Amino acid sequence: MANPSHLEIVGPVVQGVVRAKQDLSAGAAGAFPVLPVVVHGDAAFAGQGVVAETLNMSQLPGYRTGGTVHVVVDNQVGFTTLPVGGRSSTYATDVARAVGAPVFHVNGDDPEAVDRVARLAFDYRETFHRDVVVDLVCYRRHGHSEVDDPSVTQPLMYDRIDARASVRSLYADALMRRGELEEEQVEAARRGHRDHLERAFAETRALPSPRTGRPTEAEPLVVATDAPARTAPAEARAARPAVTAVDESTVRRVVASQIELPPGFAVHPRVLPQLHRRMEMVETGAVDWATAERLAFGSLLLEGVSVRLAGQDSRRGTFGQRHAVLTDRRTGAEHTPLDSLATGRGGFAVHDSMLSELAALAFEYGYATARPEALVLWEAQFGDFANGAQTVVDEYIASSEQKWGRRSGVTLLLPHGLEGQGPDHSSARIERFLQLCAQDNMTVTQPTLPANYFHLLRQQALDERSRPLLVFTPKSMLRSRAATSALADFTQGGFRPILPDTTADPVGVARILVCSGKVSHELVARRRELGLTDTAIVAVERLYPFPGRELATELARFPESARVRWVQEEPENQGAWSFVAPRLMESTGRGVEHVSRPEASAPAVGSARRHRMEQKSLLTRAFA
Amino acid sequence: MANPSHLEIVGPVVQGVVRAKQDLSAGAAGAFPVLPVVVHGDAAFAGQGVVAETLNMSQLPGYRTGGTVHVVVDNQVGFTTLPVGGRSSTYATDVARAVGAPVFHVNGDDPEAVDRVARLAFDYRETFHRDVVVDLVCYRRHGHSEVDDPSVTQPLMYDRIDARASVRSLYADALMRRGELEEEQVEAARRGHRDHLERAFAETRALPSPRTGRPTEAEPLVVATDAPARTAPAEARAARPAVTAVDESTVRRVVASQIELPPGFAVHPRVLPQLHRRMEMVETGAVDWATAERLAFGSLLLEGVSVRLAGQDSRRGTFGQRHAVLTDRRTGAEHTPLDSLATGRGGFAVHDSMLSELAALAFEYGYATARPEALVLWEAQFGDFANGAQTVVDEYIASSEQKWGRRSGVTLLLPHGLEGQGPDHSSARIERFLQLCAQDNMTVTQPTLPANYFHLLRQQALDERSRPLLVFTPKSMLRSRAATSALADFTQGGFRPILPDTTADPVGVARILVCSGKVSHELVARRRELGLTDTAIVAVERLYPFPGRELATELARFPESARVRWVQEEPENQGAWSFVAPRLMESTGRGVEHVSRPEASAPAVGSARRHRMEQKSLLTRAFA
Repeated sequence: MANPSHLEIVGPVVQGVVRAKQDLSAGAAGAFPVLPVVVHGDAAFAGQGVVAETLNMSQLPGYRTGGTVHVVVDNQVGFTTLPVGGRSSTYATDVARAVGAPVFHVNGDDPEAVDRVARLAFDYRETFHRDVVVDLVCYRRHGHSEVDDPSVTQPLMYDRIDARASVRSLYADALMRRGELEEEQVEAARRGHRDHLERAFAETRALPSPRTGRPTEAEPLVVATDAPARTAPAEARAARPAVTAVDESTVRRVVASQIELPPGFAVHPRVLPQLHRRMEMVETGAVDWATAERLAFGSLLLEGVSVRLAGQDSRRGTFGQRHAVLTDRRTGAEHTPLDSLATGRGGFAVHDSMLSELAALAFEYGYATARPEALVLWEAQFGDFANGAQTVVDEYIASSEQKWGRRSGVTLLLPHGLEGQGPDHSSARIERFLQLCAQDNMTVTQPTLPANYFHLLRQQALDERSRPLLVFTPKSMLRSRAATSALADFTQGGFRPILPDTTADPVGVARILVCSGKVSHELVARRRELGLTDTAIVAVERLYPFPGRELATELARFPESARVRWVQEEPENQGAWSFVAPRLMESTGRGVEHVSRPEASAPAVGSARRHRMEQKSLLTRAFA
Repeated sequence: MANPSHLEIVGPVVQGVVRAKQDLSAGAAGAFPVLPVVVHGDAAFAGQGVVAETLNMSQLPGYRTGGTVHVVVDNQVGFTTLPVGGRSSTYATDVARAVGAPVFHVNGDDPEAVDRVARLAFDYRETFHRDVVVDLVCYRRHGHSEVDDPSVTQPLMYDRIDARASVRSLYADALMRRGELEEEQVEAARRGHRDHLERAFAETRALPSPRTGRPTEAEPLVVATDAPARTAPAEARAARPAVTAVDESTVRRVVASQIELPPGFAVHPRVLPQLHRRMEMVETGAVDWATAERLAFGSLLLEGVSVRLAGQDSRRGTFGQRHAVLTDRRTGAEHTPLDSLATGRGGFAVHDSMLSELAALAFEYGYATARPEALVLWEAQFGDFANGAQTVVDEYIASSEQKWGRRSGVTLLLPHGLEGQGPDHSSARIERFLQLCAQDNMTVTQPTLPANYFHLLRQQALDERSRPLLVFTPKSMLRSRAATSALADFTQGGFRPILPDTTADPVGVARILVCSGKVSHELVARRRELGLTDTAIVAVERLYPFPGRELATELARFPESARVRWVQEEPENQGAWSFVAPRLMESTGRGVEHVSRPEASAPAVGSARRHRMEQKSLLTRAFA
């Protein structure tokens, strides 16, 4: 696997890739036909918490891969740090005791013992389908890097290492002593191996580069991050949009599946009305968020597209909105209505993740790389918890295609919105994701209408080109009457990167409020209260690639004298403002005002009352 | 401890606070006179990797606190997720097996058993000075939050819980059966306890708020994050600057301490010349980075200020520059030269951390909160690894004062600079820290001269007001002749937030290059090569609080017609540009051009050759 230098983070990515391959070949060759092998360093295995997280996912139904063979290259020093400074456990491998994995400590200078132990570890994995660890107790002959002299910090250790013959010599001597090899054979083997390496090196350098067509010899032997910045990404994407609208019959079929229950299945009395309401919503033209998501998942399943959603309490949904899995009130039996819609190779999988972000997101990233045809989603409890997986976002999601040509269509659902819940639970830190946007590396969105979310998810699944998708998802909007869509919104059109103003008479517009997310509904409501007809409200549903062309077209409908004002509920140094400002000015060719909370070190205030005061002030200033 | 909702991250903070308190009271009342007690949830204890990291620091010399009592409130469900979805281990507490901590599983419905086990756990900690875990096997009577109905997802479990009497009732019944209490006594105890709670509630609400002076009754009972944004932070700070210059005798004494060795101590032959060079540097007026740092630490120690540095291979230094601890080449014995300078209560501690970022940084944050009088530093191997501790930066470093009034003067040393090492090892993601800057919450710096780094560290230690300090530290600059300082730079002046241009005749300046970090030295060298006299170069050494006033003063020296151009080696969407742009325009009242690498999804390219091409182009464009 492509592996950044961030230690151990590749571990859960491997798990995701392997699980995806196993899911694809389900039933083909035994339960777990793909074997994950992960190589670790001793100091990192003991030091990095993601190792414990990855071990902890090893037996979970949503994550298991039938056992991983972990090989710890235990060279008894981490860069310059000795075990006494690096771990509190006896062995570097003791963290594996948390899941009862057997650990084989083996002398790295004894190739035959290593061979025997490796076979044993493999047999154990094949028999018990659980993780197993080989602790290769050895040493590092040279410094951590070329310029390092390890005798500066570990003089006695390196005196002994310098005096010690190499594994090859020691083993060759042993074989000769045992009469199993002659000296000429040893020398021939050595020379043969070296020639093989030299040949492979030369051949590799002579190969034409996939990028330049010239021999790679002309390029330095390091991984290249040099995809040129693409221009006009929005335009490039519009070229072949997938058809995301569905037939009315599909809508009805998916919604109907919600209440087709196994005989005698007792849905919880608090949940049953919700299921029935989903039917009514279609008739009344007020389809809510959870139902739109269900329609996206269900319609994809009907088309043979697999859907996997794993996240924090995702089966029910953090806000009690999803109910992807129903639990029999009397027996505890489970029923997953969407299962009935799966056709062909497609399947629906929804899992409550373990209480991790780092390993959990890395897993889904990896899973999505190996299954570009599936819709693969990770959901955070609240969007702010995504910072626990910042390493995954930086090292993989934002940059893996540009660094390694490795694409992933993973989708992140991050609940976002300032609703008085305090500095935690409020913000998915939109600004941080936008700061990482470049070279058309991902899609960053904040849809405000269920049907737009529906089209977005379907587009993500059906687009031929995989890219990570960020969706800042709602909390209170899940139950807002304003945030509903009509049946026709699902059977026509597609994802709209902006929602144009629909009410104002363009001629009379003196003020255009441009915004993104929940605040757009609040602005519309406030405009209605104030009875204003001079104000247009435009919602930006896709923040990256920035829909500059669409916005320019929309704004051109209004008088040139109209003031353009960005409104966000986030503090000034947060939200989309710093990203939007130069782009909005460029695409409109006008100056842009802005209204936000004052800049702040935390995402939100801790007092609910103060939050309300701030929100009121924000809406007042938006129309001032 | 103040505790954000980010699960388990408070654990290593507690360790840091306790260690600091123990260090302060060393020798006062036994080895480990402060007892850390940490309460965990079962799902988080099994799921969050930082738990394993924190356990792994429990016995390390730089981190140990003599054993922590961990109480796991094991309610057998994480929000809605059952153990089968949350962990691969038998018990939620099995991660503690990694460090051989004893775990007492005890029935939470049996108060006397819990009491006995708690005493046993405490006795174990006091006897063995190691971590111990109490697994309180119990249940959660209500939903995860007020609006949750847990019978939706766990119907059978909640049928049993609903049918079960409370701990209080069960225990009261048992005591009455055993004849140890009468019913009236039980009722009186119940009423007495409730009255006590009601009284405490009323009294608390009647107390005047520390913020408003009004009874807190008038405020909602949630933690407040509402410190008003302070204005003109730079000015506010300048009011009482600490004296950071030192006497020449201090410089000589600190440098001399480097080669005062224990009798017979054999310094490594590659290190000894470095130590001697430090003496020469003072004479030749070319003090390098590592020596300047040494002078800061040593002079503080001489003034009775403690210094603690813990980081990734920090004793030697990632780049072989520090050698804070010398190792006898023949015996492996260690010698820490700065120890000899410690006076009064001050002490010098330098530790190679375990190979973690998350727990390691959280620990230092906590340590610094409890020892505001000390200089407390965490150092990353390379600055980009700090994203492994993003949660600590967001939840504590950037916002703890504003959220909880909890100050920390922790200092982060983050090696930063584009030097052709690829997407990893290049960038500390300056832009991300700057995005978090608001309400004067921290100090963000990128010094380019050793003496400025010296004054900065001393200022951080001596300022009465604790604030986190970010220092983007050099790599190649560590050995650059351009990045040296003269003796007088240490004995005069203080930290300079900008380095004005020193060479250009202001009258003839047509172009002012404003920059930060290593590129400033490259620009100066390039200007010399080109023989230009029309270009001034100004380095911004402190990015936040932004030195707008100082910059305005400096720029006012040049003709108004001179073009102002920001130059950075980072891609356009990274580095300081997006932060600096509006501030530079505001403080100069002019338009500002900029030169950078094109925007990119990764911090740097992977090809060394391409890096050089880019760097060359950057320098050319800077002067174009």
